[in-house]
Amino acid sequence: MALIRSAYQDELDGVSQSLVDLTGMVTASMVKASKAVQTADLALAEEVIASDTKIDDYQHELDARIIDIIARQQPVASDLRALVTAMRMSADLERMGDLCHHIAKLARMRYPEVAVPAELVKTIENMGTTAVKIIEKSTHVIKTQDLQAAIELETDDDEMDKLHRALFVALLDDSWSHGIEAAIDMTLLGRYYERCADHAVSIARRVYFLVKGEYASESQAAI
Amino acid sequence: MALIRSAYQDELDGVSQSLVDLTGMVTASMVKASKAVQTADLALAEEVIASDTKIDDYQHELDARIIDIIARQQPVASDLRALVTAMRMSADLERMGDLCHHIAKLARMRYPEVAVPAELVKTIENMGTTAVKIIEKSTHVIKTQDLQAAIELETDDDEMDKLHRALFVALLDDSWSHGIEAAIDMTLLGRYYERCADHAVSIARRVYFLVKGEYASESQAAI
Repeated sequence: MALIRSAYQDELDGVSQSLVDLTGMVTASMVKASKAVQTADLALAEEVIASDTKIDDYQHELDARIIDIIARQQPVASDLRALVTAMRMSADLERMGDLCHHIAKLARMRYPEVAVPAELVKTIENMGTTAVKIIEKSTHVIKTQDLQAAIELETDDDEMDKLHRALFVALLDDSWSHGIEAAIDMTLLGRYYERCADHAVSIARRVYFLVKGEYASESQAAI
Repeated sequence: MALIRSAYQDELDGVSQSLVDLTGMVTASMVKASKAVQTADLALAEEVIASDTKIDDYQHELDARIIDIIARQQPVASDLRALVTAMRMSADLERMGDLCHHIAKLARMRYPEVAVPAELVKTIENMGTTAVKIIEKSTHVIKTQDLQAAIELETDDDEMDKLHRALFVALLDDSWSHGIEAAIDMTLLGRYYERCADHAVSIARRVYFLVKGEYASESQAAI
């Protein structure tokens, strides 16, 4: 009967829930790291830096649990693929946590100065909110296997690429007056946001592949 | 009898061999990408860019094979851990291939100019040779499970970090005369080398963990 759930099914659901929890931790880190780097908020930066270990530990525990489930349950092919995919997603999330940590470290390194020059605050703020939007949507995709949302994420990522290009345009403009150090900082900061979004998009692609057995085509991604 | 080898053992050996093959492909890409970016060699850059798809395809095939082995053979815990670790290493290698691809794309983007300003050629050359040394040593670690070499890799990575710092010192020196664009290029290039070395070190750490069941301690790493 459908009402009787196996312990094994509970374990699989537990893995999904842990992935959702992990994306929640990464979202919180991204929100805080972005605010810290835009406002030179040292306390917030320190919070993100400290919480990276928690994300790492959570991921290691989850991975160990997944391997244990595979070893004990000898899952059928479809469950095995789902478990392997969960491990890949947890690796993405762990790396996204690292990138939030890098953003926070930049905030701390330039404190009490604001790391982001005034004319770039809007662009960096938009990169932060776009990153958060992408991470939250990838969480929704993990939770619901909503493939339409998975496809939309490709377009959301185009938005991040546009912001990234706008950042370089500002750095290369003749009016740039903040010198090489700030240009290096902003180059790295832009890359951290872009890579974080890439990993979130990669999570959505993994879910899509798991459900459909193939990647979304270019034409679908363009919808 | 030891002479009678099982088909299963052959499959496990095949996975190891494929990882070694994949590191060979990444090493070749790194050698070529580094030369291309230092000498504005467009043909070599195009070769690296084209070969990235081969690395990706090889990795996907290997991952599919590993999942298939797990599904069919229902390996004991130690073999399962080895197979999961192999999948993580193949993900590292795929990413290292991407980074070589990024280096080659920078060479192509600046062609016919040399992307690297004259006073940084030596530093970038050293980053390239250090990256190749680290990748080759990680290959040796995969092949032989030589844990001493795995520990040495941490020190080799310190060398990469030193070069990375030297790069920033040059960019921030008052004598830097190549402007913002070249500073952005060198910031990204430095990061590609550093990340590539990080992934190779991570491969060695995974082997160490697989054999010892724990990570090398800081004190061992300092030997």
